[in-house]
Amino acid sequence: MKIKLIIEYDGSQYSGWQAQEGQRTIQGELERVVSDVVHEKITLYASGRTDAGVNARAQVAHFEIGENFKFNRFQFLGSVNFFLPDDIIVKDACVVGDDFDARFTVKKKTYRYYFYVSRFERPLFAKFLRVNDNVSVDLMREACQYLIGEHDFKSFVARKSGKTNFVRTIYDAKILDFGDDLFAFEITGSGFLYNMVRIIMGTLIKIGTKKCAPNAMKEIIDGKSRASAGKTVSGTPLVLFSVDYGE
Amino acid sequence: MKIKLIIEYDGSQYSGWQAQEGQRTIQGELERVVSDVVHEKITLYASGRTDAGVNARAQVAHFEIGENFKFNRFQFLGSVNFFLPDDIIVKDACVVGDDFDARFTVKKKTYRYYFYVSRFERPLFAKFLRVNDNVSVDLMREACQYLIGEHDFKSFVARKSGKTNFVRTIYDAKILDFGDDLFAFEITGSGFLYNMVRIIMGTLIKIGTKKCAPNAMKEIIDGKSRASAGKTVSGTPLVLFSVDYGE
Repeated sequence: MKIKLIIEYDGSQYSGWQAQEGQRTIQGELERVVSDVVHEKITLYASGRTDAGVNARAQVAHFEIGENFKFNRFQFLGSVNFFLPDDIIVKDACVVGDDFDARFTVKKKTYRYYFYVSRFERPLFAKFLRVNDNVSVDLMREACQYLIGEHDFKSFVARKSGKTNFVRTIYDAKILDFGDDLFAFEITGSGFLYNMVRIIMGTLIKIGTKKCAPNAMKEIIDGKSRASAGKTVSGTPLVLFSVDYGE
Repeated sequence: MKIKLIIEYDGSQYSGWQAQEGQRTIQGELERVVSDVVHEKITLYASGRTDAGVNARAQVAHFEIGENFKFNRFQFLGSVNFFLPDDIIVKDACVVGDDFDARFTVKKKTYRYYFYVSRFERPLFAKFLRVNDNVSVDLMREACQYLIGEHDFKSFVARKSGKTNFVRTIYDAKILDFGDDLFAFEITGSGFLYNMVRIIMGTLIKIGTKKCAPNAMKEIIDGKSRASAGKTVSGTPLVLFSVDYGE
């Protein structure tokens, strides 16, 4: 029997999703609490790992449990959320067919990276990335279009990634404006490489601050070299916004 | 010589604006740091106090200092912000005429109260007020119109307030929608009574959850009785958004 979970978390107090000996992780907390509630040691499989500090609005994970487990949605959500720390919540849970796999059946994922434009740090936006006010958000907006489509994103992967296939499809990439100089870069794709959103965001800042032109994004993609892209920005302003299984 | 300051703060770690013996307050921190920077013991006068936990995006305050003080905006902002804690920042400072008074020459103030609609607590919105998903934001929106105009707001003042004149003018009152079930009640008025925004917000929730109809807002205003209004909601989701001196 497979149970699918939708999870929201503030990742700022955690060493990322993946369970690691001696570290406080989202997976670690969830596996401990869910195992206690279902009286069986379970393993969680997420749509993907999130790094240290990274948040999720709707991470998806599944676990397997014996067929004779009596699943009661309200009882399960109530018990799990009662025992979880305040910065993690299971928003929903349901039984899914054996063909569902939180990691391998993902169709699309959407991330948001929150940033604000200001000459100085703003206490009300402490969790978000500050970008100096010499930035042009319009140039960043223009650069976003070059991300859309199927591309080899080798320029935007952390060097320590073990991956060899860097081709991913980006369905949408845009800048959202929340007013009061608060923005988010929102990107939807078939999948993302290690640190990919954070490196793209660093590159957008390079473009927004006129260190290169918007169409440099295309050249950086085509060049397939990590060195030409921007730096890896902080994980704290990043949110895994949604995961789509094409249901 | 009068200096006007624009201040942003996250109030969650403070016992409000007003300096109090043995308490950590916004005024206390600012007076200590500004006095050190200008080498003179100064007193700050704000547009109004904010309660414990309440935030400001653009609080305004002024202080007086001897005429021979050499004011350099960049030097002043740099020094003050270097020594202030991370959750308080002086966004701007300028010399103003003697007729300016941060408290007594205010024309309009705008507050925002952030809330989200959800069956459960959301880690990403931990600072905001949760309203259960049986609420109708449209009913709250409808009730807002009765607030606009000149009214006696005696129903919306904390009983311990020492005030006797409860007449205030509300220029605008509305619900902003930020997406993902996050909203803010935004209200602009000539001035606000102690706890007034928080009690109006509590009343809007009563209306949104159908404990009374939208036009009950008018009856509650006319009744001039604190007992008929809603409860005083938490201060943490409240932001003093702007202060307007008609300049």
